[in-house]
This record gives sequence, structure tokens and C-alpha cells, in this order.
Amino acid sequence: MPPTTLSVWQRRQFSLLALFFQMIFLILFSLFCRYIDPLDDSKRIYSGTDYPLFQDVHLMIFVGFGFLMAFLKRYGFSAVSVNLLLSAFVIQWAMLLRGFLSKQFQETGTFTLGVPEMMCADNSCAVVLITMGVLLGRMTPVQFLLLAFFETSFSVLVDHIVFNILHVNDGGRSLVVHAFGAYFGLAAALVGKKKNVMEMDEQGSIHHSDLFSMIGTLLLWVFFPSFNAAVQEPEDARHRAIMNTYLAMASGTVTTFILSSLVDNLGRFNMIHIQSSTLSGGVAIGSAANAVLYPSHAVAVGICASFVSVIGHAWLSPKLEKRFKLYDTCGVHNLHGIPGILAGIFSIIFALGYEPESYGKTLYHIYPHFEGGPMNGERNREIQAVYQLAGMGVTLATAVVGGLMTGLILQIRILNQVDDPDTFHGDINYYAQCEFNFLSKYEHEKREQELLERERLHEIY
Amino acid sequence: MPPTTLSVWQRRQFSLLALFFQMIFLILFSLFCRYIDPLDDSKRIYSGTDYPLFQDVHLMIFVGFGFLMAFLKRYGFSAVSVNLLLSAFVIQWAMLLRGFLSKQFQETGTFTLGVPEMMCADNSCAVVLITMGVLLGRMTPVQFLLLAFFETSFSVLVDHIVFNILHVNDGGRSLVVHAFGAYFGLAAALVGKKKNVMEMDEQGSIHHSDLFSMIGTLLLWVFFPSFNAAVQEPEDARHRAIMNTYLAMASGTVTTFILSSLVDNLGRFNMIHIQSSTLSGGVAIGSAANAVLYPSHAVAVGICASFVSVIGHAWLSPKLEKRFKLYDTCGVHNLHGIPGILAGIFSIIFALGYEPESYGKTLYHIYPHFEGGPMNGERNREIQAVYQLAGMGVTLATAVVGGLMTGLILQIRILNQVDDPDTFHGDINYYAQCEFNFLSKYEHEKREQELLERERLHEIY
Amino acid sequence: MPPTTLSVWQRRQFSLLALFFQMIFLILFSLFCRYIDPLDDSKRIYSGTDYPLFQDVHLMIFVGFGFLMAFLKRYGFSAVSVNLLLSAFVIQWAMLLRGFLSKQFQETGTFTLGVPEMMCADNSCAVVLITMGVLLGRMTPVQFLLLAFFETSFSVLVDHIVFNILHVNDGGRSLVVHAFGAYFGLAAALVGKKKNVMEMDEQGSIHHSDLFSMIGTLLLWVFFPSFNAAVQEPEDARHRAIMNTYLAMASGTVTTFILSSLVDNLGRFNMIHIQSSTLSGGVAIGSAANAVLYPSHAVAVGICASFVSVIGHAWLSPKLEKRFKLYDTCGVHNLHGIPGILAGIFSIIFALGYEPESYGKTLYHIYPHFEGGPMNGERNREIQAVYQLAGMGVTLATAVVGGLMTGLILQIRILNQVDDPDTFHGDINYYAQCEFNFLSKYEHEKREQELLERERLHEIY
Repeated sequence: MPPTTLSVWQRRQFSLLALFFQMIFLILFSLFCRYIDPLDDSKRIYSGTDYPLFQDVHLMIFVGFGFLMAFLKRYGFSAVSVNLLLSAFVIQWAMLLRGFLSKQFQETGTFTLGVPEMMCADNSCAVVLITMGVLLGRMTPVQFLLLAFFETSFSVLVDHIVFNILHVNDGGRSLVVHAFGAYFGLAAALVGKKKNVMEMDEQGSIHHSDLFSMIGTLLLWVFFPSFNAAVQEPEDARHRAIMNTYLAMASGTVTTFILSSLVDNLGRFNMIHIQSSTLSGGVAIGSAANAVLYPSHAVAVGICASFVSVIGHAWLSPKLEKRFKLYDTCGVHNLHGIPGILAGIFSIIFALGYEPESYGKTLYHIYPHFEGGPMNGERNREIQAVYQLAGMGVTLATAVVGGLMTGLILQIRILNQVDDPDTFHGDINYYAQCEFNFLSKYEHEKREQELLERERLHEIY
Repeated sequence: MPPTTLSVWQRRQFSLLALFFQMIFLILFSLFCRYIDPLDDSKRIYSGTDYPLFQDVHLMIFVGFGFLMAFLKRYGFSAVSVNLLLSAFVIQWAMLLRGFLSKQFQETGTFTLGVPEMMCADNSCAVVLITMGVLLGRMTPVQFLLLAFFETSFSVLVDHIVFNILHVNDGGRSLVVHAFGAYFGLAAALVGKKKNVMEMDEQGSIHHSDLFSMIGTLLLWVFFPSFNAAVQEPEDARHRAIMNTYLAMASGTVTTFILSSLVDNLGRFNMIHIQSSTLSGGVAIGSAANAVLYPSHAVAVGICASFVSVIGHAWLSPKLEKRFKLYDTCGVHNLHGIPGILAGIFSIIFALGYEPESYGKTLYHIYPHFEGGPMNGERNREIQAVYQLAGMGVTLATAVVGGLMTGLILQIRILNQVDDPDTFHGDINYYAQCEFNFLSKYEHEKREQELLERERLHEIY
Repeated sequence: MPPTTLSVWQRRQFSLLALFFQMIFLILFSLFCRYIDPLDDSKRIYSGTDYPLFQDVHLMIFVGFGFLMAFLKRYGFSAVSVNLLLSAFVIQWAMLLRGFLSKQFQETGTFTLGVPEMMCADNSCAVVLITMGVLLGRMTPVQFLLLAFFETSFSVLVDHIVFNILHVNDGGRSLVVHAFGAYFGLAAALVGKKKNVMEMDEQGSIHHSDLFSMIGTLLLWVFFPSFNAAVQEPEDARHRAIMNTYLAMASGTVTTFILSSLVDNLGRFNMIHIQSSTLSGGVAIGSAANAVLYPSHAVAVGICASFVSVIGHAWLSPKLEKRFKLYDTCGVHNLHGIPGILAGIFSIIFALGYEPESYGKTLYHIYPHFEGGPMNGERNREIQAVYQLAGMGVTLATAVVGGLMTGLILQIRILNQVDDPDTFHGDINYYAQCEFNFLSKYEHEKREQELLERERLHEIY
């Protein structure tokens, strides 16, 4: 790895670009962003339950997602640290974008921040982190940074359309977070056509990487009810969101183990399914988590979700790789993609299936434009179902188009690219497939250690 | 490992049995289970402190218990994933069983779910996970599933007797969770008489497994006050439960280090004691956590608890193994068993020792059948103490009888069994003592890797 | 390692000293400590938000700090377990000391405990754990225990002076926790002059240790807003503390990645910076977290903090080591030291820069002795700024003097000392530089395993 072969631009482009963005953020925050005056309504700030819920979600984003992707031996530290970088970046950009789209900004020229805005910013991180799971190991930090910038922009826009224009019920945000993030990433991966790093890495993967990954899985498992309930109102919808997610995840987990054993010749469990499909129940119940009225329906959703997820891992993913050269590093399609679409379908079914009267007065929190409500809406069950379908369509279309566009932009030749695995030993690009080239700490020691080991062996024999 | 030697029944029995249970659960949920109408009493749903407390306990069950058992090198991933499977299974079964025993079900034919029911379901998981700690490495998944089914049934019944019939104060549930789980597991282990896997494994245990285990230990340490306070009422009892547990754990931890150093010839600390006995203070204060009125009493309980726990690890466990062939994989007896009994004894002592007047009006929350209360009870301090003793007796007797019965059932020859360590290399049963046979992901790669390493070494020398 | 060379005093001094302290604690608790009568003011006990906030901080102290220091390969388990020991010890001692300094004790002869007292006790743990980060690997348990005893005493005294006498605003306690802990440790290290273990250890450090360390980093990252908001009043100050910390950490993290790449020849990221400097924003905003009124100011503070922190790691630390033989095992100076001083400076700037009227009525919660308030204070902006400076001076002076004194005391020859790395193979002191000498579990197995490996290799070749 001769440093002389790297131009200044190659070595400094990440710093320059990130510095540029951070300075822009500072200026925009100072011009347009204020804190809410908390004395106006002191109960909604903190004393309520929003901050503990926010902390559950915050833990999922920063620790859960990071460690979920740590199962790749050579990318464990990268996964966790790029996760941190992108989240810290997206938090700021999403807060600013949401502010600019807010009514308050259009009326007063400034916007304010509070705990609900932090919750939304963390949700935007989830979108980018899901996409990162598709592309991990095949992108340089500068590409990830630009990806985060573009994807967050698309994602906040889709949020605005789905919630404020179409008035769709996507309670746990399975559509605008999970499905959007997954298909955005898959579209970007399709353009990239880089070979999957998994094939190269699996051999080297060891036991402990999988235990780190389980830290991520379990944190997401535990806090998924909080994620789906985070932005629900009023209290009874929040309560249903918690309970439905809890039940869907329990039944989904048992079903995952059943199917994982069934698809194996010898009836053994597959680690990948345990690490990923056990979470699919929480994704699939997401959109309708606040709307499902019977415990048994949540249990059934969990069973369906893990079914499609395990089948996806076992049969669909290998085919997509073979046919379409569509590589998906962390199997995001089977955890967030298909279960996300399932969530959209269930949100249609439950909008059609339940009597609106069962919700009582809280109906208009869930479907604000239903007839007879304070918004003077004119929707009935069927019309709401059509809007739910439209929301799903808008989300997926934007994800695919946005992903393709972003994927193309990221291939501009002036940006640092990851070497193709086939030219793995190339000296020109130092962002080779190895984590030790991406991070600086141990390089020197590593080489020394190898020499030492060699020597030691020579001594013995 | 020739797959041909396995019958279809051997390969598919887990899937069939789990599918059977999951379908039964779905049917029972759909027939009998409803959500509470949250508009009735909106404050008790979420806005209160119950959901954050529930999340603390939820994290203990799914992450804490799982990682606590990850210290066995070859069973780390099994521990964490079987932990997840059993918990997801028990959650559903315990909710249904508790529902069927509820007054509401007897009156209306249906029962309802809410945050308190989630809390109780998670508590039932703890019972099974403690038992799993005794038997880890010596049971196949299908055996664990049946164990969870039977143990949860016994455990919910004991709960009902102890709380609703005997009206015993077991605040932090040390008797019905910790002592019950430990002695149930020990009784089942006694029938099994499988050799302890620890002996085989210790050699291979390495450094990082112990750090994973410390994740479990520390999560349990941090959230133990929430566990003991989870189902306490009213607020002042909950407050005392938190403070008493906090103090008992602090003094217990210091004492653990003192004793661990004392029982070592060279004055060093023992990792096992640090991983386990540091938690014993929380178990021992449990039953009376809501009742102890003086900080110094909690400190004293913590000191006693870690004393018996370290002595148990150092002297009792080796003797039980030698004399009675009683193997206890994770040393559960010294963390949950003896300290659980200690908790029962302390609950008797504190029922006798304190003036009932000190509790003021909240006396009847702690001892509902005390004389002069709303339940028209006729107990005084001495009678309550006798009931506390009776509760301990019922719990332990059911645990031992239930454990023996379940242990016998699990040895039915049609169920998959773990090979005896002495016939370790047998080809007939693929559930050998190795995790790589239990999980499918790496098997192929592993073999390849070994070949590669061998080759590499041959090249060098 | 012949055990015969160790005297009884060497082997038992830890147990004797710790037992002595624990007995004293028990006596003091029983004489002077009571619980608050929770019926007086039931809302402040638990129903409020204090307990969930406390749990966030509790998790930071016991899991976050412990794992943050787990990156040293041979000290991972020591870091986590000594962290637990010292915290359990400090909790008790700090509660007692604070009680003795309280008004209530001076008036009634007893003092009471509640959730706020637990919060303060956990804060005192942070002080000692920061100091432990400087000295890790160079002290025996008995030395750490005495260090904890002395440092907690100094620290509680400084707290009392800064808050109750000088009435300084140190909201997130960056001065009295972070700066105090760091400079106390550096002063003690200066007296010790032991060689840094890092130099010896880095070679052996591997991948997984760094992932464990990231667990610590991320837990601290996620809960830092709770840490800075923990003891804030009223609600709007708490809200600002949360938001300011969140923003400062986001901008600080992006800036850390920018600078980490800039100071590397090849533009790579440095693991140490990611593990440590990403947290510096939370430290630097700490003292004024409740006072900063504009989001952009918090963003700017985060940028400055990570700037000094990365520069510290890259240029200052190597110089301090070379010139002054000042070794800092975990780079505490760059995470807690300099950002802590920065926090003090910012607290002066913001006291000077904002119009007091902007705070409305809550001004007197932040600056209680400001003119016109209920305390009849006579301070204006300039005088308050002088007091802030005085608070910083008192904190740093006490830290340095206390650290030097404690460092000298810990070198008394009757205490067990860590061998100098140069005499590493000495038989006399078993507390050599190796964790396996400090903990007992694996020693026997380790030696056997080495023999086995040797044999296996002989067989092959």
C-alpha cells in the first residue's frame, strides 16, 4: 500500500465534503432553528412518557442497528462506526429538512425543536441505516455520506407526502422507514453491481461476530414495541401499538425457529434467520400497529411475517443474486423489504376489515380524514384503503427511482470507490476490501505481529 | 455426520411440536383474548411509569439472561438464541394461562391484556431461563420446548396459590421466580444425570466469552431494582423496593469481591463469582424488597446473600457434583437457588420484626390479609410469618416435584437427546455436544477452513 | 509463580481493607440513614421522570464506562470487573458523605435517601471511573479501593463548595465530574510514573476488544443527554439540557470523523478517535447544557470539543508521555480533561453572553444568586462569570492537589503494587501485568491448553 499513489483529493475528499456539510448545517441551524419555549406547555416536554420512549428508539438506532451489522468479521468495526457517523450526520440534516417543510417555518420563518423532533430525526437515521445494510462493504465513507444526504432528502419528502398530503396511516412507519430504506438500497445496489462481500467473508466469520450481531438483534427485538409506538397518539393507540408489536414478535420468533429448522436438511437452525427473521414480525405489524384491535390478529401477522422472511432468506435471495446480480450484504430485503410491503398490505386489510365505530373517538387520530371527523374528511373504509395503497405505491416508487439516481451519482469517478474483489490486491486504491485499510490504528502492529508469529513457529519447529 | 442416519421424525420433531403449540396459541388467543378498552382508565396504560419499568425488565430477560449464559465457548450462540426461542414461546403460553386463571375469565369468558400482563409474562420467562441455565448444553431444542411448556404451567399455578390463595408477600418474586426456577431445574437435572459440559468446555473457554457474559451480568445488575419494583404497589412500596435492591446489590458486590479473594489461595478474584454472586443481593432482598424499612437492613441482606453465594460456588457445588452427580451448568443454585431461599427466610423475619404501624395505610398492599384491612383479614405478624413459610414450602415442593416429573418426561426415547459426552464421536445423533452441529451456518466453511489452515501450516514448514 | 513467596498480608490485604470499609458503611447506615417517608410527596418519588432518567445514568456508569475501557486486550475483564467493584463501593461511601454534609443531618442527626440521592451517588462513581481510566493496568485492586475512598471524599467536598457555597452553574457536572476525575487521575499518574501499559499491549489488541469498547462508547453516546439532564430543574432547563447535548454530540461526532481522517496521512479514520472523541461534545456542553438558548450554539460547542479532543489524541498525548512521562491508559485527558475545561470556559462565556431576561422565571434555578431572586443574591452577569471561573479554579486545584496526595499515599510499600514492566517476569509479585494473574479462573486450564497446542503442533509436523 504505497501512499504515494494516492492523490490529495483521494485522501482528503471525505474530510472536505463532510466539513462542507457540517458548516452548512451550522449556518442553517443558526439562521432558522430555535428551541420551543417550554413554559408554554410544560407537560408535553419531558414529564410525559415521550423522552423514555425516545431513549428506547435512540438505543435501537445507535447500538441496535450498529451491532446487527457487526456479524461480518472484517466489517464489524466499520459497521458500528459508519453507523455512528451516518446517524450523527442524518440527525442534523433531517431536523433541518423537516423544519423547512413545517407549517411553522412557512408562517414565521423559523422552526423549533423538541423531543418529538428528535424522535423523527432518529427515525430518519433508521432509513439510511437499513440502506447501509444492503451496501455494507461495497462503499467508501465518502459514498456513504453522499448516500445519506440524498436518501434523507428523498425520505423526508416521502414522509411529507404520505402523512401530510395523503393522510395514510403508517403508524410504526414500516412503509416510510423499512420498505423505503430497503428498496432504496436495493435499487442503488442494482446500479452498482459490485460483487457481494459475504461470499468472500463467510469463511472467515467466527463465532464472536455472531454474538455481537445478536446484541443488535436483541436490542431491536426488545425495543421494537417502543419504535412502533413512538409517534402514536392518543394513549390507547399507543397502547395497542405496544401490545400488537409484542405479540407479533413473540409469534414471529417461534415461527422463525420452526421454519428455519424445516428448510434445513438436518433440521438445524440457521444463524442468519435467528439474527434477522425474528424481527420481521415487528416490521410487518408496523403500519397497522395502532389499528389492530384483536390480539389474535397480531399473532397471525407475526406468523405470516416470519414465513415470508425465512422463505426470502432461503430461496429468494440466492435467486436474486444469481439472476439479477443483486447483492444484499445483510439480507435487508428479507428483514425490512418484504415484511415492509407486507405491512402495507396489512394496513389495507385492517382499514377495510374493522368497523370504524370500534375505535370510538380516537378513530380520527388514526385515519384523520375519515368522514365525520374534525378535518371534515370524506373518506370511508374503501376510500381509506385506496389511500393506503397509494401511500405504498408512492413510497416504493420514490425509493426505487431515488435509489437508482443516487446509485448512479455515487459512481462518479472522482469519488473514492471500493476495489472490485477480483482486483483485490491492487495497490492503487487503498479502500480495499479490508477493514484494516479503512481504519488506521493497528496496521503497523498487525504486520509486526504476523512476523512475530512466523518467527515463533520457526523457533518451535 | 451422515444425514442418512437421521429419521424424518428426528429431523422434524421440533418443527412439528412447535408448530402444534403455535397453532393452539393462535386459536386460544382468537377465542378468549381481548385488549383492555384503554379509554376506561387512560392513566394506568402508559402515561404512568409502568411501560419504562416493563422495558427495563424486558431488557433483562432477553439480553441480560441470554448473555449471562454466553460464557460457555461452544454454547454462546445457543444460549442466546434458545433464550430468545423459549422466551417468545413462554410469553404466549403464560399470558394464556394467567388469563384462564383470572377472575375476569371466570366471569365473562374472555380476558384482557395490558402492560401489567406483559410484565407478568416476562416474569414467567425468567423462571424458564433460570432452569435453562442449569441444563444448558445437555438438552436438545425439542426438550427445552417441552420443558418450557410444563414448567410454565407449574409456575403459573404456584403463582396463583402463593399470591391469590395464601396471600404471601413475595414482592420481587424471589420465591416464585428465582427459587422455583432453580430447584425445578436441579430436580430435572438430577433425573437426567448427564455429565456436566463445563468440565469439557472450560479448557476451551476464552477471554471474550467472559466479556459477553459480563454484558449479561451488568444488565441484570443495573435493572435489578426495576425487576424487584416492577409489580409493586403503591408508590412508596415501589420506592422502597428500588432503594433496598440498589443498596443490597452494592453491599453484596463489595462482599463478593472480599470473599472471592478470601477463598483463593493467592487472594485473586474468581471470574465466576464476579459474574454471578454479585447479583445475589438482588435475589435475596427480593421477597421483602417492598417491606424492608431501613437502609442498613438492605445492606445487611446484601452481605449475607453474597456470603452464601460465594460459599456455594466454592464448596457446595463441587460436593453436589461429586456426591449426587448433580450438574449445574451455569451455577444457578448459587445465584438463584440459595439466595432465593434466603429471600424467603428474610421475608419471614421482616414480617415478624417490624411494627405493622410503620407502614401506615400501605400495610394492606403488602400484607393484604392483615387484621383491620379492606379484605377483612385476621392475620397478625406471627400468622403472616407462618403464611410466608407456607408459601416457601409450597413453592419449593412444587418445584421439586414438577422438576422431577418433567425431567422424566423429557427422557422419553422418541425425543431427540443430547449424546452422552463419553460417546461424543457417535455418528447416530447429530445433536452432539457441539454448537456447530446444532446450528447450520458455518459447518461447511468450518471444515474448509480447517483444511486451509492445515495446508497453510504445511506450506510454511 | 510460586505462592510461597507471597506473605499473608500480601494475599489478604484487599479482603481485610474492603471488609473494614464495608463494616464501617453498615454501621454508619444503621446509625444515620433513613428512607424518606414517601407519602409526604408521592409524585417526586417515582411517578415523575426521575427513575427512568436514573436508569439511563445507571446503565452508563455500570455498562458504558466498564466496556469503554475494555479495549485493552489483557485488561478487558479487569476493566469491567474493577469498574463494578469500585462503583458498588463508591455508591455507599458517596451516599454517606453527602448525607453528612446535608442540612437535614445537621438539623436532625439523620439523613434520608431517595431517587435523587441515587443519582448523585452514581455521579460520584463516574468521577472515580474516569480516574480509573487513566491508571488502568498500573494499579492493584487494593490501590484502586483506597483511591476510590480518597477521591470520593475530595470529590464530594468539591461538589459541596461549587454548588452550595459558590453557587456555580455546572449543570451536566462537567467540571466536578469530568474535569475533576481526569486531572485527579493525571496527578496521581504523575506521581506514580509507571510506564504506560498501552505500549506493551497494543500489539496484542485485536478486533473484538474494539467492538466491546464500542458497546461502551455507544451506550455513553446514547445516554449522554440523560446524564446532562439528570439533575436539572425545572422542566425547561431539563429540556434544553437534553436538546443541547443531543445536538452537540451529533455535530461533534461528524467533526471527529473529519479531523480523524485529516490527521492521518492516508485519510483513514482512527479507532481511538471514534471510541473517545465522539463523546467530547457531550462533555463540553455539560456545564452550560441547561443554559444554552440556541441550537446553533450547541452545534458550535460540539465542533470545538471534538477539535480539541482529536488534536489532543494526535499531538498532545504523545508529547505529555515523552516530556513528562505522563501516561494515560485510556486517553482520559482528551475525552474528559480538555473538554471538561472547555465546558468551564463555555459556562463563563454563556453566563456573560445571554440576556438574563431570556430565561424568564427559571433564571434563578440556573443562577440562584442572581439579583432579584428568592435567595436575595446580588450577582449580575459579570459577577456570575467570575464565580464560574472561581468554581473551575477550585475544582482543578483540588483535583491536582488531591491526586498528588492520593498518588503518594498509594505508593506506600506495604500496599500491593503492580510490577514495573521492565521486571515483568519477576516471581515476587503475582500482580504482574497480566490479567490471568489477577483473576483465578483459567490459570490451570490455560497452562494445559498451551501444552495441548504445543503437542498438537508437534503431531502435525
